[in-house]
Amino acid sequence: MANRPPAVVLLSGGLDSAVVAAWLQQRGFGLRALTLDYGQRHRVELEAARRLAEHFRVEEHLIQPLDLRAIGGSALTSSIEVPKADHPEAEVAPDIPVTYVPARNLIFLSIALAFAEARGAQDLGIGVNALDYSGYPDCRPEFLDAFRHCADLATRVGVEGKPIQIHTPLQQKSKVEILQMALDFGIPVDQTVSCYDPAADGSPCRACDACRLRYQAERQLGLKEA
Amino acid sequence: MANRPPAVVLLSGGLDSAVVAAWLQQRGFGLRALTLDYGQRHRVELEAARRLAEHFRVEEHLIQPLDLRAIGGSALTSSIEVPKADHPEAEVAPDIPVTYVPARNLIFLSIALAFAEARGAQDLGIGVNALDYSGYPDCRPEFLDAFRHCADLATRVGVEGKPIQIHTPLQQKSKVEILQMALDFGIPVDQTVSCYDPAADGSPCRACDACRLRYQAERQLGLKEA
Repeated sequence: MANRPPAVVLLSGGLDSAVVAAWLQQRGFGLRALTLDYGQRHRVELEAARRLAEHFRVEEHLIQPLDLRAIGGSALTSSIEVPKADHPEAEVAPDIPVTYVPARNLIFLSIALAFAEARGAQDLGIGVNALDYSGYPDCRPEFLDAFRHCADLATRVGVEGKPIQIHTPLQQKSKVEILQMALDFGIPVDQTVSCYDPAADGSPCRACDACRLRYQAERQLGLKEA
Repeated sequence: MANRPPAVVLLSGGLDSAVVAAWLQQRGFGLRALTLDYGQRHRVELEAARRLAEHFRVEEHLIQPLDLRAIGGSALTSSIEVPKADHPEAEVAPDIPVTYVPARNLIFLSIALAFAEARGAQDLGIGVNALDYSGYPDCRPEFLDAFRHCADLATRVGVEGKPIQIHTPLQQKSKVEILQMALDFGIPVDQTVSCYDPAADGSPCRACDACRLRYQAERQLGLKEA
Protein backbone atom coordinates (compact mmCIF):
# COMPACT_ATOMS: atom_id res chain seq x y z
CA MET A 1 0.00 0.00 0.00
CA ALA A 2 2.72 2.41 1.05
CA ASN A 3 4.56 2.03 -2.23
CA ARG A 4 1.78 3.13 -4.50
CA PRO A 5 2.68 6.31 -6.39
CA PRO A 6 0.38 9.17 -5.46
CA ALA A 7 -2.25 10.55 -7.82
CA VAL A 8 -4.60 13.44 -7.23
CA VAL A 9 -8.24 13.05 -8.18
CA LEU A 10 -10.79 15.86 -8.29
CA LEU A 11 -13.61 14.19 -6.39
CA SER A 12 -16.87 16.12 -6.61
CA GLY A 13 -19.26 13.59 -5.14
CA GLY A 14 -20.75 12.97 -8.58
CA LEU A 15 -20.68 9.83 -10.66
CA ASP A 16 -17.99 10.84 -13.17
CA SER A 17 -15.25 11.76 -10.73
CA ALA A 18 -15.91 8.59 -8.73
CA VAL A 19 -15.26 6.57 -11.88
CA VAL A 20 -12.00 8.46 -12.44
CA ALA A 21 -10.96 7.68 -8.85
CA ALA A 22 -11.62 3.97 -9.43
CA TRP A 23 -9.81 4.13 -12.77
CA LEU A 24 -6.70 5.62 -11.13
CA GLN A 25 -6.87 3.15 -8.26
CA GLN A 26 -7.04 0.24 -10.70
CA ARG A 27 -3.84 1.56 -12.28
CA GLY A 28 -2.06 1.23 -8.95
CA PHE A 29 -2.12 4.80 -7.69
CA GLY A 30 -2.60 5.83 -4.08
CA LEU A 31 -5.36 8.42 -4.13
CA ARG A 32 -5.20 11.97 -2.85
CA ALA A 33 -8.71 13.30 -3.29
CA LEU A 34 -9.45 16.99 -3.66
CA THR A 35 -12.98 18.30 -3.23
CA LEU A 36 -13.79 21.96 -3.74
CA ASP A 37 -16.39 23.40 -1.40
CA TYR A 38 -17.25 26.30 -3.68
CA GLY A 39 -20.58 27.30 -2.23
CA GLN A 40 -22.42 25.10 -4.70
CA ARG A 41 -26.16 24.92 -4.44
CA HIS A 42 -25.92 21.13 -4.33
CA ARG A 43 -24.22 20.89 -0.93
CA VAL A 44 -25.06 17.20 -0.62
CA GLU A 45 -22.25 16.69 -3.15
CA LEU A 46 -19.79 17.30 -0.33
CA GLU A 47 -21.30 14.57 1.82
CA ALA A 48 -21.22 12.25 -1.15
CA ALA A 49 -17.56 13.12 -1.74
CA ARG A 50 -16.79 12.23 1.89
CA ARG A 51 -18.55 8.88 1.58
CA LEU A 52 -16.78 8.10 -1.68
CA ALA A 53 -13.39 9.05 -0.26
CA GLU A 54 -14.11 6.53 2.49
CA HIS A 55 -15.22 3.91 -0.02
CA PHE A 56 -11.96 4.31 -1.93
CA ARG A 57 -9.92 4.49 1.29
CA VAL A 58 -8.02 7.44 -0.11
CA GLU A 59 -4.77 8.32 1.58
CA GLU A 60 -5.78 11.95 1.95
CA HIS A 61 -9.00 13.84 1.35
CA LEU A 62 -8.63 17.59 1.18
CA ILE A 63 -11.90 19.52 1.18
CA GLN A 64 -10.80 22.96 0.10
CA PRO A 65 -13.18 25.88 0.68
CA LEU A 66 -13.31 28.41 -2.15
CA ASP A 67 -16.56 30.31 -2.04
CA LEU A 68 -17.40 31.21 -5.63
CA ARG A 69 -20.71 32.79 -4.59
CA ALA A 70 -18.92 36.12 -4.16
CA ILE A 71 -18.04 35.89 -7.85
CA GLY A 72 -21.39 34.48 -8.95
CA GLY A 73 -22.39 34.45 -12.60
CA SER A 74 -23.84 30.93 -12.50
CA ALA A 75 -27.06 29.18 -11.53
CA LEU A 76 -24.95 26.91 -9.32
CA THR A 77 -23.50 29.74 -7.23
CA SER A 78 -26.07 32.54 -7.36
CA SER A 79 -29.80 33.14 -7.32
CA ILE A 80 -30.13 32.39 -11.06
CA GLU A 81 -32.59 29.50 -11.36
CA VAL A 82 -31.44 26.05 -12.43
CA PRO A 83 -33.37 25.24 -15.63
CA LYS A 84 -35.75 22.29 -15.37
CA ALA A 85 -37.44 20.20 -18.02
CA ASP A 86 -40.98 18.86 -17.80
CA HIS A 87 -39.98 15.29 -18.45
CA PRO A 88 -36.87 13.29 -17.51
CA GLU A 89 -36.58 12.08 -21.11
CA ALA A 90 -36.27 15.65 -22.42
CA GLU A 91 -32.99 16.20 -24.27
CA VAL A 92 -30.21 18.39 -22.93
CA ALA A 93 -29.59 21.43 -25.14
CA PRO A 94 -26.10 21.72 -26.69
CA ASP A 95 -25.44 25.41 -25.89
CA ILE A 96 -23.67 26.84 -22.85
CA PRO A 97 -26.13 26.45 -19.97
CA VAL A 98 -26.66 28.94 -17.11
CA THR A 99 -25.22 26.27 -14.84
CA TYR A 100 -21.85 27.09 -16.40
CA VAL A 101 -19.67 28.42 -13.56
CA PRO A 102 -17.15 30.94 -14.93
CA ALA A 103 -13.78 29.24 -15.43
CA ARG A 104 -14.65 26.51 -12.90
CA ASN A 105 -12.66 23.66 -14.38
CA LEU A 106 -9.72 25.96 -14.94
CA ILE A 107 -9.81 27.00 -11.27
CA PHE A 108 -10.29 23.45 -10.00
CA LEU A 109 -7.57 22.03 -12.21
CA SER A 110 -5.18 24.78 -11.13
CA ILE A 111 -5.73 24.01 -7.45
CA ALA A 112 -5.48 20.28 -8.12
CA LEU A 113 -2.22 20.89 -9.95
CA ALA A 114 -0.83 22.74 -6.93
CA PHE A 115 -1.99 19.92 -4.67
CA ALA A 116 -0.32 17.34 -6.93
CA GLU A 117 2.91 19.30 -7.07
CA ALA A 118 2.99 19.80 -3.29
CA ARG A 119 2.40 16.05 -2.72
CA GLY A 120 4.91 14.90 -5.30
CA ALA A 121 2.16 13.35 -7.44
CA GLN A 122 2.91 13.09 -11.14
CA ASP A 123 -0.65 12.16 -12.04
CA LEU A 124 -3.93 13.99 -11.78
CA GLY A 125 -7.39 12.82 -12.86
CA ILE A 126 -10.55 14.77 -13.64
CA GLY A 127 -13.94 13.50 -14.80
CA VAL A 128 -14.56 15.92 -17.62
CA ASN A 129 -16.70 14.67 -20.41
CA ALA A 130 -17.09 16.23 -23.83
CA LEU A 131 -20.07 14.29 -25.10
CA ASP A 132 -22.96 14.83 -22.74
CA TYR A 133 -21.73 18.20 -21.53
CA SER A 134 -20.65 19.64 -24.85
CA GLY A 135 -22.13 22.98 -23.79
CA TYR A 136 -19.45 23.64 -21.17
CA PRO A 137 -16.41 25.23 -22.81
CA ASP A 138 -14.09 23.91 -20.11
CA CYS A 139 -14.99 20.27 -20.76
CA ARG A 140 -13.71 20.25 -24.33
CA PRO A 141 -10.54 18.40 -25.35
CA GLU A 142 -9.01 21.59 -26.78
CA PHE A 143 -9.35 23.28 -23.38
CA LEU A 144 -7.76 20.30 -21.64
CA ASP A 145 -4.85 20.29 -24.08
CA ALA A 146 -4.32 24.02 -23.56
CA PHE A 147 -4.40 23.47 -19.81
CA ARG A 148 -1.80 20.70 -20.03
CA HIS A 149 0.54 23.03 -21.87
CA CYS A 150 -0.12 25.82 -19.37
CA ALA A 151 0.44 23.46 -16.42
CA ASP A 152 3.82 22.37 -17.76
CA LEU A 153 4.91 26.01 -17.86
CA ALA A 154 3.35 27.07 -14.55
CA THR A 155 4.97 24.56 -12.23
CA ARG A 156 8.38 23.79 -10.84
CA VAL A 157 8.01 20.13 -11.85
CA GLY A 158 7.02 21.17 -15.37
CA VAL A 159 10.06 23.39 -15.73
CA GLU A 160 12.27 20.66 -14.31
CA GLY A 161 11.10 18.22 -16.99
CA LYS A 162 8.80 16.05 -14.88
CA PRO A 163 5.40 17.48 -15.81
CA ILE A 164 2.23 16.28 -14.14
CA GLN A 165 0.11 14.03 -16.38
CA ILE A 166 -3.52 15.09 -16.54
CA HIS A 167 -5.82 12.13 -17.11
CA THR A 168 -9.30 12.55 -18.57
CA PRO A 169 -10.42 8.96 -19.10
CA LEU A 170 -14.08 9.91 -19.54
CA GLN A 171 -13.50 12.60 -22.14
CA GLN A 172 -15.18 10.69 -24.97
CA LYS A 173 -17.51 8.43 -23.00
CA SER A 174 -21.29 8.60 -23.02
CA LYS A 175 -23.17 8.73 -19.72
CA VAL A 176 -24.25 5.11 -20.33
CA GLU A 177 -20.64 4.01 -20.74
CA ILE A 178 -19.63 5.91 -17.60
CA LEU A 179 -22.44 4.34 -15.59
CA GLN A 180 -21.43 0.90 -16.87
CA MET A 181 -17.82 1.58 -15.82
CA ALA A 182 -19.06 2.60 -12.37
CA LEU A 183 -20.99 -0.65 -12.02
CA ASP A 184 -17.99 -2.66 -13.23
CA PHE A 185 -15.74 -0.90 -10.70
CA GLY A 186 -18.22 -1.72 -7.91
CA ILE A 187 -18.80 1.93 -7.11
CA PRO A 188 -21.82 2.50 -4.85
CA VAL A 189 -23.57 4.61 -7.49
CA ASP A 190 -26.53 5.31 -5.21
CA GLN A 191 -24.18 7.30 -3.03
CA THR A 192 -23.08 9.61 -5.84
CA VAL A 193 -24.95 12.86 -6.44
CA SER A 194 -25.67 14.26 -9.89
CA CYS A 195 -28.48 16.75 -9.26
CA TYR A 196 -27.71 20.49 -9.58
CA ASP A 197 -30.59 21.52 -7.34
CA PRO A 198 -31.46 18.84 -4.79
CA ALA A 199 -34.14 19.24 -2.13
CA ALA A 200 -33.16 20.04 1.45
CA ASP A 201 -33.15 16.31 2.26
CA GLY A 202 -30.72 15.69 -0.59
CA SER A 203 -33.16 14.03 -2.97
CA PRO A 204 -32.63 14.85 -6.67
CA CYS A 205 -35.00 17.18 -8.56
CA ARG A 206 -35.18 14.73 -11.51
CA ALA A 207 -35.64 17.67 -13.88
CA CYS A 208 -32.29 19.50 -14.23
CA ASP A 209 -29.85 18.63 -17.04
CA ALA A 210 -27.68 16.51 -14.76
CA CYS A 211 -30.62 14.52 -13.39
CA ARG A 212 -31.98 13.88 -16.87
CA LEU A 213 -28.65 12.74 -18.30
CA ARG A 214 -28.30 10.34 -15.41
CA TYR A 215 -31.92 9.15 -15.54
CA GLN A 216 -31.65 8.47 -19.26
CA ALA A 217 -28.45 6.47 -18.75
CA GLU A 218 -30.00 4.47 -15.92
CA ARG A 219 -33.01 3.70 -18.12
CA GLN A 220 -30.76 2.51 -20.93
CA LEU A 221 -28.99 0.13 -18.59
CA GLY A 222 -32.29 -1.10 -17.22
CA LEU A 223 -31.68 0.33 -13.74
CA LYS A 224 -34.80 2.48 -13.91
CA GLU A 225 -38.26 1.40 -15.02
CA ALA A 226 -39.78 3.23 -17.98
CA MET B 1 -17.33 57.50 -13.66
CA ALA B 2 -20.24 55.20 -14.34
CA ASN B 3 -19.32 54.76 -17.97
CA ARG B 4 -15.84 53.44 -17.43
CA PRO B 5 -15.48 49.89 -18.74
CA PRO B 6 -14.67 47.46 -15.94
CA ALA B 7 -11.26 45.85 -15.56
CA VAL B 8 -10.16 43.34 -12.96
CA VAL B 9 -6.83 43.81 -11.23
CA LEU B 10 -5.12 41.24 -9.03
CA LEU B 11 -4.21 43.49 -6.11
CA SER B 12 -1.84 41.81 -3.66
CA GLY B 13 -0.89 44.77 -1.50
CA GLY B 14 2.57 44.79 -3.06
CA LEU B 15 4.18 47.44 -5.20
CA ASP B 16 3.85 45.75 -8.58
CA SER B 17 0.12 45.12 -8.55
CA ALA B 18 -0.50 48.67 -7.31
CA VAL B 19 1.32 49.95 -10.39
CA VAL B 20 -0.83 47.74 -12.62
CA ALA B 21 -3.96 49.13 -10.95
CA ALA B 22 -2.81 52.69 -11.66
CA TRP B 23 -1.88 51.72 -15.22
CA LEU B 24 -5.37 50.34 -15.87
CA GLN B 25 -6.99 53.35 -14.23
CA GLN B 26 -4.99 55.72 -16.40
CA ARG B 27 -6.36 53.87 -19.44
CA GLY B 28 -9.90 54.70 -18.36
CA PHE B 29 -10.98 51.48 -16.71
CA GLY B 30 -13.16 51.22 -13.62
CA LEU B 31 -11.30 48.91 -11.26
CA ARG B 32 -12.59 45.69 -9.75
CA ALA B 33 -9.82 44.58 -7.41
CA LEU B 34 -9.32 40.96 -6.43
CA THR B 35 -7.14 40.04 -3.47
CA LEU B 36 -6.50 36.43 -2.54
CA ASP B 37 -6.31 35.72 1.16
CA TYR B 38 -4.36 32.49 0.72
CA GLY B 39 -3.00 32.07 4.20
CA GLN B 40 0.19 33.87 3.27
CA ARG B 41 2.78 34.41 5.95
CA HIS B 42 2.82 38.09 5.10
CA ARG B 43 -0.72 38.88 6.30
CA VAL B 44 -0.01 42.62 6.36
CA GLU B 45 -0.31 42.37 2.57
CA LEU B 46 -4.06 42.16 3.01
CA GLU B 47 -4.20 45.37 5.01
CA ALA B 48 -2.06 47.04 2.38
CA ALA B 49 -4.40 45.78 -0.34
CA ARG B 50 -7.36 47.31 1.52
CA ARG B 51 -5.60 50.66 1.82
CA LEU B 52 -4.61 50.64 -1.85
CA ALA B 53 -8.13 49.73 -2.95
CA GLU B 54 -9.26 52.78 -1.03
CA HIS B 55 -6.54 54.93 -2.58
CA PHE B 56 -7.66 53.90 -6.06
CA ARG B 57 -11.35 54.21 -5.15
CA VAL B 58 -12.01 50.88 -6.82
CA GLU B 59 -15.62 50.10 -7.65
CA GLU B 60 -15.40 46.71 -5.97
CA HIS B 61 -12.79 45.01 -3.83
CA LEU B 62 -13.25 41.28 -3.45
CA ILE B 63 -11.02 39.66 -0.85
CA GLN B 64 -11.37 35.99 -1.65
CA PRO B 65 -10.26 33.45 0.94
CA LEU B 66 -8.45 30.40 -0.46
CA ASP B 67 -6.29 28.86 2.21
CA LEU B 68 -3.32 27.32 0.44
CA ARG B 69 -1.73 26.25 3.72
CA ALA B 70 -3.60 22.94 3.48
CA ILE B 71 -1.73 22.36 0.22
CA GLY B 72 1.57 23.77 1.43
CA GLY B 73 4.78 23.16 -0.48
CA SER B 74 6.06 26.72 -0.12
CA ALA B 75 7.89 28.89 2.40
CA LEU B 76 5.02 31.38 2.06
CA THR B 77 2.33 28.92 3.12
CA SER B 78 4.06 26.37 5.34
CA SER B 79 6.72 26.10 8.02
CA ILE B 80 9.54 26.09 5.44
CA GLU B 81 11.77 29.05 6.32
CA VAL B 82 11.93 32.11 4.09
CA PRO B 83 15.58 32.42 2.99
CA LYS B 84 17.37 35.54 4.19
CA ALA B 85 20.58 37.18 3.06
CA ASP B 86 23.13 38.82 5.35
CA HIS B 87 23.10 42.09 3.50
CA PRO B 88 20.37 44.00 1.65
CA GLU B 89 22.68 44.42 -1.33
CA ALA B 90 23.06 40.65 -1.75
CA GLU B 91 21.90 39.48 -5.17
CA VAL B 92 18.79 37.39 -5.66
CA ALA B 93 19.58 33.91 -7.04
CA PRO B 94 18.08 33.07 -10.45
CA ASP B 95 16.75 29.58 -9.61
CA ILE B 96 13.26 28.65 -8.38
CA PRO B 97 13.15 29.79 -4.75
CA VAL B 98 11.40 27.97 -1.86
CA THR B 99 9.02 30.93 -1.77
CA TYR B 100 7.54 29.54 -5.01
CA VAL B 101 3.92 28.63 -4.20
CA PRO B 102 2.82 25.68 -6.37
CA ALA B 103 0.84 26.99 -9.35
CA ARG B 104 -0.02 30.21 -7.52
CA ASN B 105 -0.24 32.56 -10.49
CA LEU B 106 -2.19 29.96 -12.42
CA ILE B 107 -4.69 29.69 -9.55
CA PHE B 108 -4.93 33.45 -9.03
CA LEU B 109 -5.31 34.18 -12.74
CA SER B 110 -8.00 31.52 -13.04
CA ILE B 111 -10.04 33.05 -10.22
CA ALA B 112 -9.47 36.55 -11.61
CA LEU B 113 -10.66 35.32 -15.00
CA ALA B 114 -13.87 34.00 -13.44
CA PHE B 115 -14.33 37.31 -11.62
CA ALA B 116 -13.81 39.24 -14.87
CA GLU B 117 -16.24 37.05 -16.77
CA ALA B 118 -18.89 37.31 -14.05
CA ARG B 119 -18.56 41.12 -13.99
CA GLY B 120 -18.54 41.54 -17.75
CA ALA B 121 -14.96 42.83 -17.72
CA GLN B 122 -12.98 42.29 -20.89
CA ASP B 123 -9.69 43.31 -19.30
CA LEU B 124 -7.60 41.84 -16.53
CA GLY B 125 -4.26 43.04 -15.19
CA ILE B 126 -1.59 41.22 -13.20
CA GLY B 127 1.77 42.50 -11.96
CA VAL B 128 3.95 39.62 -13.06
CA ASN B 129 7.50 40.46 -13.81
CA ALA B 130 9.98 38.30 -15.65
CA LEU B 131 13.19 40.17 -14.92
CA ASP B 132 13.65 40.33 -11.19
CA TYR B 133 11.65 37.19 -10.50
CA SER B 134 13.02 35.04 -13.28
CA GLY B 135 13.09 32.11 -10.85
CA TYR B 136 9.31 31.77 -10.68
CA PRO B 137 8.08 29.64 -13.60
CA ASP B 138 4.65 31.28 -13.53
CA CYS B 139 6.04 34.78 -14.09
CA ARG B 140 7.53 33.98 -17.50
CA PRO B 141 6.05 35.34 -20.74
CA GLU B 142 5.64 31.82 -22.15
CA PHE B 143 3.46 30.88 -19.19
CA LEU B 144 1.36 34.00 -19.63
CA ASP B 145 0.90 33.29 -23.33
CA ALA B 146 -0.16 29.72 -22.58
CA PHE B 147 -2.59 31.01 -19.98
CA ARG B 148 -4.12 33.46 -22.44
CA HIS B 149 -4.77 30.63 -24.87
CA CYS B 150 -6.20 28.46 -22.09
CA ALA B 151 -8.43 31.31 -20.87
CA ASP B 152 -9.90 31.83 -24.33
CA LEU B 153 -10.91 28.17 -24.42
CA ALA B 154 -12.11 27.92 -20.80
CA THR B 155 -14.65 30.72 -20.76
CA ARG B 156 -18.02 31.48 -22.26
CA VAL B 157 -16.79 34.88 -23.46
CA GLY B 158 -13.76 33.24 -25.06
CA VAL B 159 -15.92 30.75 -26.93
CA GLU B 160 -18.27 33.53 -27.98
CA GLY B 161 -15.41 35.47 -29.56
CA LYS B 162 -14.99 38.19 -26.94
CA PRO B 163 -11.99 36.89 -25.01
CA ILE B 164 -10.70 38.64 -21.91
CA GLN B 165 -7.45 40.55 -22.51
CA ILE B 166 -4.77 39.77 -19.95
CA HIS B 167 -2.47 42.74 -19.39
CA THR B 168 1.02 42.31 -17.97
CA PRO B 169 2.49 45.80 -18.31
CA LEU B 170 5.39 45.07 -15.94
CA GLN B 171 6.51 41.87 -17.62
CA GLN B 172 9.81 43.32 -18.87
CA LYS B 173 10.36 46.10 -16.35
CA SER B 174 13.10 46.23 -13.76
CA LYS B 175 12.25 46.94 -10.14
CA VAL B 176 13.73 50.41 -10.55
CA GLU B 177 11.46 51.12 -13.51
CA ILE B 178 8.44 49.80 -11.60
CA LEU B 179 9.26 51.96 -8.59
CA GLN B 180 9.66 54.98 -10.88
CA MET B 181 6.26 54.23 -12.44
CA ALA B 182 4.74 54.03 -8.95
CA LEU B 183 6.17 57.43 -8.04
CA ASP B 184 4.96 58.91 -11.35
CA PHE B 185 1.46 57.52 -10.73
CA GLY B 186 1.42 59.09 -7.27
CA ILE B 187 1.04 55.73 -5.55
CA PRO B 188 1.67 55.87 -1.78
CA VAL B 189 4.57 53.42 -2.03
CA ASP B 190 5.12 53.44 1.71
CA GLN B 191 1.77 51.73 2.06
CA THR B 192 2.70 48.82 -0.20
CA VAL B 193 4.21 45.68 1.30
CA SER B 194 6.94 43.67 -0.38
CA CYS B 195 8.37 41.59 2.46
CA TYR B 196 7.73 37.82 2.48
CA ASP B 197 8.25 37.49 6.21
CA PRO B 198 7.37 40.69 8.05
CA ALA B 199 7.48 41.06 11.83
CA ALA B 200 4.29 40.91 13.88
CA ASP B 201 4.02 44.71 13.69
CA GLY B 202 4.21 44.54 9.88
CA SER B 203 7.73 45.88 9.54
CA PRO B 204 9.81 44.30 6.74
CA CYS B 205 12.63 41.84 7.48
CA ARG B 206 14.95 43.65 5.02
CA ALA B 207 16.66 40.33 4.24
CA CYS B 208 14.31 38.22 2.08
CA ASP B 209 14.50 38.30 -1.73
CA ALA B 210 11.53 40.68 -2.03
CA CYS B 211 12.92 43.12 0.54
CA ARG B 212 16.31 43.14 -1.10
CA LEU B 213 14.95 43.72 -4.61
CA ARG B 214 12.94 46.61 -3.29
CA TYR B 215 15.76 48.03 -1.17
CA GLN B 216 18.14 47.93 -4.11
CA ALA B 217 15.61 49.73 -6.33
CA GLU B 218 14.99 52.38 -3.67
CA ARG B 219 18.74 52.93 -3.34
CA GLN B 220 19.10 53.35 -7.09
CA LEU B 221 16.39 56.01 -7.12
CA GLY B 222 17.97 57.76 -4.16
CA LEU B 223 15.06 56.99 -1.83
CA LYS B 224 17.28 55.10 0.60
CA GLU B 225 20.64 56.21 1.95
CA ALA B 226 23.61 54.00 1.23
